[in-house]
Amino acid sequence: MTFKAGIIGAAGFAGAELCRLILDHPSIDLCAVTSDANSGAKLSDIYPSFIGKTDIAFKANKDVSFDECDLVFLAVPHTAAMRVVPDLLDSGKKVFDLSADFRLHDKDVYEKWYCAEHTAADLLDMAVFGLPEIYKEELKVLSKSTGSEKCVLVACAGCYPTASSLAAWPAVKAGLVDGASTVIVDAISGITGAGKSPNARNQFCFVNESAEAYSIASHRHTPEIEQILGLEGQIVFTPHLAPMNRGLLSTVYIPVSRDIKLPTLSELIETYECCYADSPFVSVLSEGIFPKTRSVVGTNNAQIGLAVDETTRMIVATCAIDNLGKGAAGQAVQCANIVLGLDESEGLGRWAMPV
Amino acid sequence: MTFKAGIIGAAGFAGAELCRLILDHPSIDLCAVTSDANSGAKLSDIYPSFIGKTDIAFKANKDVSFDECDLVFLAVPHTAAMRVVPDLLDSGKKVFDLSADFRLHDKDVYEKWYCAEHTAADLLDMAVFGLPEIYKEELKVLSKSTGSEKCVLVACAGCYPTASSLAAWPAVKAGLVDGASTVIVDAISGITGAGKSPNARNQFCFVNESAEAYSIASHRHTPEIEQILGLEGQIVFTPHLAPMNRGLLSTVYIPVSRDIKLPTLSELIETYECCYADSPFVSVLSEGIFPKTRSVVGTNNAQIGLAVDETTRMIVATCAIDNLGKGAAGQAVQCANIVLGLDESEGLGRWAMPV
Amino acid sequence: MTFKAGIIGAAGFAGAELCRLILDHPSIDLCAVTSDANSGAKLSDIYPSFIGKTDIAFKANKDVSFDECDLVFLAVPHTAAMRVVPDLLDSGKKVFDLSADFRLHDKDVYEKWYCAEHTAADLLDMAVFGLPEIYKEELKVLSKSTGSEKCVLVACAGCYPTASSLAAWPAVKAGLVDGASTVIVDAISGITGAGKSPNARNQFCFVNESAEAYSIASHRHTPEIEQILGLEGQIVFTPHLAPMNRGLLSTVYIPVSRDIKLPTLSELIETYECCYADSPFVSVLSEGIFPKTRSVVGTNNAQIGLAVDETTRMIVATCAIDNLGKGAAGQAVQCANIVLGLDESEGLGRWAMPV
Amino acid sequence: MTFKAGIIGAAGFAGAELCRLILDHPSIDLCAVTSDANSGAKLSDIYPSFIGKTDIAFKANKDVSFDECDLVFLAVPHTAAMRVVPDLLDSGKKVFDLSADFRLHDKDVYEKWYCAEHTAADLLDMAVFGLPEIYKEELKVLSKSTGSEKCVLVACAGCYPTASSLAAWPAVKAGLVDGASTVIVDAISGITGAGKSPNARNQFCFVNESAEAYSIASHRHTPEIEQILGLEGQIVFTPHLAPMNRGLLSTVYIPVSRDIKLPTLSELIETYECCYADSPFVSVLSEGIFPKTRSVVGTNNAQIGLAVDETTRMIVATCAIDNLGKGAAGQAVQCANIVLGLDESEGLGRWAMPV
Repeated sequence: MTFKAGIIGAAGFAGAELCRLILDHPSIDLCAVTSDANSGAKLSDIYPSFIGKTDIAFKANKDVSFDECDLVFLAVPHTAAMRVVPDLLDSGKKVFDLSADFRLHDKDVYEKWYCAEHTAADLLDMAVFGLPEIYKEELKVLSKSTGSEKCVLVACAGCYPTASSLAAWPAVKAGLVDGASTVIVDAISGITGAGKSPNARNQFCFVNESAEAYSIASHRHTPEIEQILGLEGQIVFTPHLAPMNRGLLSTVYIPVSRDIKLPTLSELIETYECCYADSPFVSVLSEGIFPKTRSVVGTNNAQIGLAVDETTRMIVATCAIDNLGKGAAGQAVQCANIVLGLDESEGLGRWAMPV
Repeated sequence: MTFKAGIIGAAGFAGAELCRLILDHPSIDLCAVTSDANSGAKLSDIYPSFIGKTDIAFKANKDVSFDECDLVFLAVPHTAAMRVVPDLLDSGKKVFDLSADFRLHDKDVYEKWYCAEHTAADLLDMAVFGLPEIYKEELKVLSKSTGSEKCVLVACAGCYPTASSLAAWPAVKAGLVDGASTVIVDAISGITGAGKSPNARNQFCFVNESAEAYSIASHRHTPEIEQILGLEGQIVFTPHLAPMNRGLLSTVYIPVSRDIKLPTLSELIETYECCYADSPFVSVLSEGIFPKTRSVVGTNNAQIGLAVDETTRMIVATCAIDNLGKGAAGQAVQCANIVLGLDESEGLGRWAMPV
Repeated sequence: MTFKAGIIGAAGFAGAELCRLILDHPSIDLCAVTSDANSGAKLSDIYPSFIGKTDIAFKANKDVSFDECDLVFLAVPHTAAMRVVPDLLDSGKKVFDLSADFRLHDKDVYEKWYCAEHTAADLLDMAVFGLPEIYKEELKVLSKSTGSEKCVLVACAGCYPTASSLAAWPAVKAGLVDGASTVIVDAISGITGAGKSPNARNQFCFVNESAEAYSIASHRHTPEIEQILGLEGQIVFTPHLAPMNRGLLSTVYIPVSRDIKLPTLSELIETYECCYADSPFVSVLSEGIFPKTRSVVGTNNAQIGLAVDETTRMIVATCAIDNLGKGAAGQAVQCANIVLGLDESEGLGRWAMPV
Repeated sequence: MTFKAGIIGAAGFAGAELCRLILDHPSIDLCAVTSDANSGAKLSDIYPSFIGKTDIAFKANKDVSFDECDLVFLAVPHTAAMRVVPDLLDSGKKVFDLSADFRLHDKDVYEKWYCAEHTAADLLDMAVFGLPEIYKEELKVLSKSTGSEKCVLVACAGCYPTASSLAAWPAVKAGLVDGASTVIVDAISGITGAGKSPNARNQFCFVNESAEAYSIASHRHTPEIEQILGLEGQIVFTPHLAPMNRGLLSTVYIPVSRDIKLPTLSELIETYECCYADSPFVSVLSEGIFPKTRSVVGTNNAQIGLAVDETTRMIVATCAIDNLGKGAAGQAVQCANIVLGLDESEGLGRWAMPV
């Protein structure tokens, strides 16, 4: 069986990566791509890597009905998603939203961090969080309980929360962190994370040959990480930019509770391997090996390296993903696969270039 | 039917890319990878992008018989290939050599440019040149005339000759160049072209944020380009390095003979499109559009842009390829597909990341 | 004696580099910097490298009289310069224009290539071309004949014409090129050449890890190169972009006339060395050595490498400069030094970082 | 008065940067540069940015007496410095050691972290730590108490400890950190930090377009940071590599003791500004502004940005330096200036390129 998909906001970086993934997906056809700013242009005009692959052109959002689509991916900015999701659900679509609009369970937390009114807060309860390694059962339920005609809303995890949570989750789940500790999340992202609109922030000459921190202790992904890990008020998160297109590395410092025996590194690695035994995209690396972002660029893979500092009783976990892959488009396809009852890995079998 | 392949010299950059391609090829299985310098190590130790994909390990060349292999790819330096090819052919293998050893028809030209004795010159006659867009009939003949047990030697084209010849071939074939003219080939390559052995030439700090020309008017790919285009003594070739991993752009200046009516740009584009009508990996771009190397990185694709300068009667053709893809590993797989009677594009359907 | 300088358009890349040079110049004080788009902002707000160095702030052009300035640098786009130059000259300023407005002697050539009416064409005759290695006598005349109160107009050379002309000039001056030959100029520039306004052309993710040609056979620097070298209608020029902030490499192919004995490489190097004996910023490299752009980044230096191809009777000369240094701001200061009667090298003694 | 300096190990990255600084220093002449691996070669052969600047050539260490030198800089690996320092001191030299050999007061700590016997441990007591912002008085004492003939040993701080300590020192000095807290130091360095010897770690294709952590919780700079800040056993340090030549950003997480009133951000900035009021190379940035490494590349400058997270009572301080400037060569010259009684800033007045 082949499903039909549309992509709203397909001209952005995550949208374009979604196009690449869906165009090669064995069970999902790409029916429509929209971009108000680029309507009329071909996908290959904006992204010449598609030359020879597809002649599909962008349409304006208002000109597309999505009637023939089984599923719709939203790759639009926050606040834009909440404006279109209700109608899509009403018409029975399965919606995979890459924006932040339906990730936070608590409307107030959303409105505080995003400085915007949530106009579809009644849908927050039905939204399932799209991070399959941690919420696979909830996603599978969508697959089982719904017929092909039933609507679904999946709020796909953000890029920083994905890498940071994958790095910390097994330790937190194992009860190593107490409620009084602060977990520090220090992450580095490639420049695609800054989006496609040209500005001084993503201009070559200002970011090339430079590293910088930004939004220290104030980035909007902080409450999302706290929600996933159940560590409200315990996260300090600092994102950095490094001069590369893609790739995201999150280094998480997890203090082990004084009440708990400090695990050895090999015990810790075993805990992580068990936790991710059924997660085909996550690799836990051997002792002394730490991941490079380039090993996962272009893929839905995550690689995790671990260390234990005995003196300070600190676990340091570092996780590499592609911010546009596992951190955005790949994850959305992985969620869609699960919800559609397909193999979780279908269409996501790419491996990164060796160099 | 599934064929079995071995790769000699699989730890180099072209070898590792071949591993990536063969591991995903529907009709070719990867049976053995050799590297004397890395025997015992896993492919994923050297190239961590393979973690989770394969546990295959390098063996020493002498420890591998290749008995079970139908075909063998050679990704070794020049002079190393000529030492192993005779035995491989004797045992009936189909050999796809990525080195320069069997590209030049003339032993003397080889020995002059490569400053080495050719110890298997008797095989030069049987070697078919591996650039399918120009030598497809010769490659197809190998497919038809040989049984699966028959040996074959394909000398795959070099990276600079591939892009440069694709840029110039339709104009030369159309008779636009006379025998007195000089064709200038000015090309830019990513740093993977300098190979994997660490040295000052490929060290990050010396090549980053810099461009340079090298081997001006003395690069070994010069006679190869001349041979392909039939322009002996008419090529001046300057390679440049730019700070990027992959990608090769060749800008070729083709003076149109005074005896010929200068084509308009649209006529020229039509000539190129006709010439490459049956070449699934070559795209000729529209007027005013010139290719970026990033549009083809990781793929077997080539994109060509064209201009005509009326004042000087000069055609300028610029062709982008991935030096490790269409310029090396991808091309070898394309040649193998043709020789094995498979679809030319099998296992080569990747498209570059949009960003 | 200390001179006072103003910079119009100081917020652009060339303007900011001028600020850096003038702030460290022993004999020139920086009095005023203007930028209509950034008026009110401090230079260090836009370019944080100036934090701790200067608190100077941009003013709107209309709010600055330049009365106290002896000299004014124009770092504005073409057509903007011609609108302010007449008044500046009327008030007796020495004007150093980094735009293209007064470079071409022929109003018609300007209007054809720049698609704009020249509204100050009567000043073209008085403009001296600002490329001291080739026009030093003309610049010195300005120094001698004018008092400090006399107006001066120097049209500083463009970045591509500077590197390309330095590469070709000694060969052309020596009479090696005949009037029927075509000289090919193939150049690579860093991304600062695309200017400061954010757009898809200079956005990190689109230019990183990529090389491309642009404006093939149609770039506006073509007539400027032809004018400098006296080779009208004989130049084909292709600029390329490479992923680096600064640096420009021009590789020039100079066919030696059949009527002339082909020089040996050592003879050619000697010719170049003689030609640049009095040029403190130009280094002619030894046989087999070719320049890297990184060797001159941040400086006013130029390095030239040479080769001779006997088969095709072609000289290949490759010249590296910093497009914002010798190709823009450094050159303007060098011109100002000469016109002001200072040492040509004053304030320009920087050497590039070794790595 | 002009002093004469020699540089041992001048062919490495820090050594070459020292050459650049000393060659432009108004009061220090460069007399001798040594490199056993490059003896006979000119500095400009290895680093072509010096072409036209100097013809100085490397000598073997054993062939240089340093008799005429007043001061000697050591830019050699650890354990190499301890072998030559005793003789240099015996002959009355002022020694500025960029290696780690004399940084740690405690011989046992050194031997544990560096896995090597300390053969000149009797000199540890006389070594003054070379981080002028924190140890200026100790350095000034050397200036006052010693005649020009008296020997001096300055152990210049490492790159990570410099940035990390500058980020944390004012908070620690103000008593904000208690003895039970863990301070996390998360830093990003450019690739020059990996040294000049070519290997897979510093090869272009393996580090380009990638970020990674390394030596997590085990890097040798950990005890150095602990010693400077007086926080033995309280530091967890993770260094990262980012694809850039130079630049080092250290983001330090400083938990404020529960016994102390949490400072507001403006109070904290004031504390830092007071602390660095007499430090000409340190800039404390305004609220909401965080430093980019590119703003200090090529200089001896440091820029610090600050944030306070009220929920977790965490100060986050991020400091940018050039690892080869303030983190190595610049700092050594700054120390030498102080010890020689010169202005602290002499010869260090460079500002980074705006782009």
